[in-house]
Amino acid sequence: MPETGFQLDPRLEEIGHPLAEWPLSRVFLFDDARFPWLMLVPRRADIVEILDLAPADRQQLFDETMKAAEALRAVARPDKLNIGALGNMVRQLHVHIVGRFQSDPAWPGPVWGHGERMPYPAHMVGPLMDRLRQAFGA
Amino acid sequence: MPETGFQLDPRLEEIGHPLAEWPLSRVFLFDDARFPWLMLVPRRADIVEILDLAPADRQQLFDETMKAAEALRAVARPDKLNIGALGNMVRQLHVHIVGRFQSDPAWPGPVWGHGERMPYPAHMVGPLMDRLRQAFGA
Repeated sequence: MPETGFQLDPRLEEIGHPLAEWPLSRVFLFDDARFPWLMLVPRRADIVEILDLAPADRQQLFDETMKAAEALRAVARPDKLNIGALGNMVRQLHVHIVGRFQSDPAWPGPVWGHGERMPYPAHMVGPLMDRLRQAFGA
Repeated sequence: MPETGFQLDPRLEEIGHPLAEWPLSRVFLFDDARFPWLMLVPRRADIVEILDLAPADRQQLFDETMKAAEALRAVARPDKLNIGALGNMVRQLHVHIVGRFQSDPAWPGPVWGHGERMPYPAHMVGPLMDRLRQAFGA
């Protein structure tokens, strides 16, 4: 499938630190220090629902979601993973993988729409991204 | 994989109208008339995360999630699908497939934890379940 025409929505670009380019997806660390949070954006133009991906892309997105979840779990050791594809705010297809703690500010509710995003201080984001990239390679 | 020991969490049983038994999952209509909402519960004991399913079960759960999403979209024609595995309240693995409308009471926020569940009136739930079962068979 062509990547022709793929353009990252600027609202996703603004809140994502680019971590990796996987065969289908661009992988981001979501810039909210309250929660360990990855986001996958398939490099396909004009796709809103997972259902609208070609079958091979659906499969690849699922595999990449599992890979991201494994890495996030290994690095953050959360009490629970939350995985979701919503897209009510930004329609461009993106998948969230969030590590949740009983001590986090949104627990046990969902993270989406909860309070104010808290961008990472500059000294925190580099080391966290390094560890995540290591976990992706493992 | 054995189904030995699988027991549906009573909190899921209370809010789900049983729709179908698929190879892996029990399929429910979530009893909240505010949103068209399906829920899949894999018949596996003691599983909390998708990651903890055996690889073949992971794949089957994904395929069944897509099948549920197709049917829900065909029947409800929502503006957006929301698909999520959270489990912060009930740890037994379950996947939500929710049809969202810009006119629904939680839009554009997530449905989870939003306001009070509104059980279906008895005269509504039967016809909706019939249509969903037809869509599953299609």
